[in-house]
Amino acid sequence: MSEERTEAVARLYVTGDLGEGVAVTLDEGQAHYLLHVLRAKPGNLVLLFNGRDGEWAAEISAAAKRGVTAKCLQQTETQHGTPDIWLAFAPVKKTPSDYLVQKAAELGVSVLQPVFTRRTIVARINEERMAANAIEAAEQSGRLTVPQIRAGVSFDKLLASWPQERRLLFCDEGGDAKAMTQAARESRGGPTGILTGPEGGFDPAERAALRALPFVMPVSLGPRILRADTAALAALAIWQSIAGDWS
Amino acid sequence: MSEERTEAVARLYVTGDLGEGVAVTLDEGQAHYLLHVLRAKPGNLVLLFNGRDGEWAAEISAAAKRGVTAKCLQQTETQHGTPDIWLAFAPVKKTPSDYLVQKAAELGVSVLQPVFTRRTIVARINEERMAANAIEAAEQSGRLTVPQIRAGVSFDKLLASWPQERRLLFCDEGGDAKAMTQAARESRGGPTGILTGPEGGFDPAERAALRALPFVMPVSLGPRILRADTAALAALAIWQSIAGDWS
Repeated sequence: MSEERTEAVARLYVTGDLGEGVAVTLDEGQAHYLLHVLRAKPGNLVLLFNGRDGEWAAEISAAAKRGVTAKCLQQTETQHGTPDIWLAFAPVKKTPSDYLVQKAAELGVSVLQPVFTRRTIVARINEERMAANAIEAAEQSGRLTVPQIRAGVSFDKLLASWPQERRLLFCDEGGDAKAMTQAARESRGGPTGILTGPEGGFDPAERAALRALPFVMPVSLGPRILRADTAALAALAIWQSIAGDWS
Repeated sequence: MSEERTEAVARLYVTGDLGEGVAVTLDEGQAHYLLHVLRAKPGNLVLLFNGRDGEWAAEISAAAKRGVTAKCLQQTETQHGTPDIWLAFAPVKKTPSDYLVQKAAELGVSVLQPVFTRRTIVARINEERMAANAIEAAEQSGRLTVPQIRAGVSFDKLLASWPQERRLLFCDEGGDAKAMTQAARESRGGPTGILTGPEGGFDPAERAALRALPFVMPVSLGPRILRADTAALAALAIWQSIAGDWS
């Protein structure tokens, strides 16, 4: 790890461009966090990333009431691609959803797609809260990108709009299904998504609709009944370890 | 699934013996849950397991003020072994610990061993609360056993008392380490444990001590920094999918 990285007081996601000598104005929340939580001072270093320009060590150059700016000194990591893995999930109640978004971001998911299935109890999702959780997890995990949070869609809409070339690993609780390890091996190198259901699972009509589609592969996550969030995280971890960037 | 299982109003862990015609007295918490939360009536079915005698459908036969008894009618699953996988983990603050115990139980862990490392901030653990979380997750996940919750030990004590024949997969954030998939393949068929650190990881002396032991295998969980609980669950899921009972 370079000296700049170990000395940095925080790692922050920004939307503006990054490059040598570029001064970045941090947003209000970031300024508050730096000045009042971390008690950072001008001259302290932060790490910045925006999903495009890699990671930069930047020096806090002004900390006035009107905002905090940081000037990019040196690139600490070049931008590189991350595995193309989506997670489509039936939202669950608040805390598990927060947890799911954070953990999925740490595990390197690229897109988070909420899906309202017939047995989904949660009627609305807070996309802003999901995005904030995703950004925080990206900052802490060292990712160079932030997972994209999609607007919630109905189950039917999800299937109708799913890109045909993207394999969909459907975590199926009942009936014959491929082991997740095998499915991960077969999806290696291609665009992939994982689909997990709500507490109570998919209903029979949904299971039948999924199994009839050519891009869907039903997968099994072992002999025990997993909660919705456990299933999603287990599937992502196994996929990353076999077909993603963990090996 | 047999008719008895789909009709059951609850699945409960009990400590007494189970067998045809045996009447089991449920504890106060279970009685309250059945009568006042689920509004169960005499004649309703419950599923019972004790970690030894498989799973039984039992009929609620009395629901008096002094307690609820259920009479075993039919065995719905015979007892079978589960993978011998321990998780030794540095405890984290309350909610993540609850979450970790629940998820690890769902993922089929057999022993949960809290370990106090040098960077562990949590000073005390609530073993009773951990046990309650483990039982609830075992009931809901369909397990026939409940994970054993061990008393917390220091890092030095853990290493000194670790059974030499049990491989210990040490989730190491820094330096060269085997991919978790490879480590899982190599530990297949033998007793295994997974060790995860606190937020902030193991300190250099701890890492050196671990790496010097013949039964320890350092493993990697990919290029991103995972929170302590994410690392534990990812490692367990991958191990189960490759060396456990998921395939």
